[in-house]
Amino acid sequence: MRRVKLTVAYDGTAYAGWQTQPNGPTIQSVMEQALGRILHEPIRLRAAGRTDAGVHAREQVVDFADSGKRDLEAVVRGGNAFLPEDIRILSAQEVPPEFDARRHAREKEYRYFLLLSGIAFPFLSRYAWHIESPIDLGAVREALLFLVGEHDFTSFQGQGCAAQTPVRTIFHAGVTLYDASGLPGLREPGLCSIDVTGSGFLRHMVRSIVGTVIDAGRGRCRPEAIARILEKRSRSEAGVTAPACGLFLWKVNY
Amino acid sequence: MRRVKLTVAYDGTAYAGWQTQPNGPTIQSVMEQALGRILHEPIRLRAAGRTDAGVHAREQVVDFADSGKRDLEAVVRGGNAFLPEDIRILSAQEVPPEFDARRHAREKEYRYFLLLSGIAFPFLSRYAWHIESPIDLGAVREALLFLVGEHDFTSFQGQGCAAQTPVRTIFHAGVTLYDASGLPGLREPGLCSIDVTGSGFLRHMVRSIVGTVIDAGRGRCRPEAIARILEKRSRSEAGVTAPACGLFLWKVNY
Repeated sequence: MRRVKLTVAYDGTAYAGWQTQPNGPTIQSVMEQALGRILHEPIRLRAAGRTDAGVHAREQVVDFADSGKRDLEAVVRGGNAFLPEDIRILSAQEVPPEFDARRHAREKEYRYFLLLSGIAFPFLSRYAWHIESPIDLGAVREALLFLVGEHDFTSFQGQGCAAQTPVRTIFHAGVTLYDASGLPGLREPGLCSIDVTGSGFLRHMVRSIVGTVIDAGRGRCRPEAIARILEKRSRSEAGVTAPACGLFLWKVNY
Repeated sequence: MRRVKLTVAYDGTAYAGWQTQPNGPTIQSVMEQALGRILHEPIRLRAAGRTDAGVHAREQVVDFADSGKRDLEAVVRGGNAFLPEDIRILSAQEVPPEFDARRHAREKEYRYFLLLSGIAFPFLSRYAWHIESPIDLGAVREALLFLVGEHDFTSFQGQGCAAQTPVRTIFHAGVTLYDASGLPGLREPGLCSIDVTGSGFLRHMVRSIVGTVIDAGRGRCRPEAIARILEKRSRSEAGVTAPACGLFLWKVNY
């Protein structure tokens, strides 16, 4: 058997998330089918992070085992030929048999895109949360710093989360501003992302972090409130879960 | 009566082009309906350029006359509230009664986006033509220069064009490279656009120009062939009509 690691990008708009399930097509089921067709054997994928319905990936990492009948270039080319346009295999690499995309991931980076502008742009509606009211990004940055380190993230854990422990470590949390002048349809500097890198994430964790720090940016709470919210260990203390469309699994490091 | 000039951006993917017609929804029909609802009177729009099915606009300019019952801020806000997400009014301005968005346009700029990359990116599939094989952009630039000036563009005129004369003036034609490192899903410098500014354009003119200069970039013809193609005044001399998805009406100057 050969173990293969794939780097994959997808637009999650049309899918019921990563993991195979009865409600509509998923990235996993569509990819397993396409790879099965090119490799002529059943393929079972494991992903570094199980993205939710509507969430995108810039660099998801997945792995599978096969009998190694076709070279890796053929896996990329043939896989992409059988995949829909909104899922692309970026690269393939042979890895040691014990490699596990999920368990061996050292850190994952998520970026959540915000369009801060009086007017939405049609070319970003699938990929960013549009916020019309003014946001104090300094307060957002300050609020994010209270999340860095090892914490019990129960207050930011979505319902139905199967994690064994709510304790996670955030290595970095910050804001990136984009010069969007080269983007079709966007001229003003209104595109930014909230970036969170950590050891692992609970269900809806990034999206409820975003909903909460945006409350700080709107002046609805002070940045220091994040420390208290963490301590209370109750989901009702934190802000709303931000919409799925703005979230990207950005990078997985091993 | 008041005459109003609107600047509008749209993602043309879901529409049968600008102009009202029986085959499916158009930007014009959807916008006239939304503006009619907010202004409580029938609205008839004129556009600077009639974009085809699937073509986008970053800054289309349209005008209409109304009785002036609502202020322009309400037109923008209310219009956008009634419009689908893929059409946005960017601004509104009162203009002299004789203003005509199409006839008074001094120059129009179109940009045609190309993704030159071994692998397509899911976030650009609606907005760029993906070309896998290597392209010599120097040859594309050289070929474009043969189009600058006043020419008979019969060889680049699509079927069913209602223009009175095939003579048009191109003021500028060039290539822009984008630093796409801030774009979700795109890291390598593979995004560029073919930009053409002119007094006016025939049906499918930009897309057949793009199809032809890409032939030069692929080495299928020499850049100088453009001069001969113009002279022959026959559509069959030029290259294919590039796909609609890559084309943006970028800017209209008055």
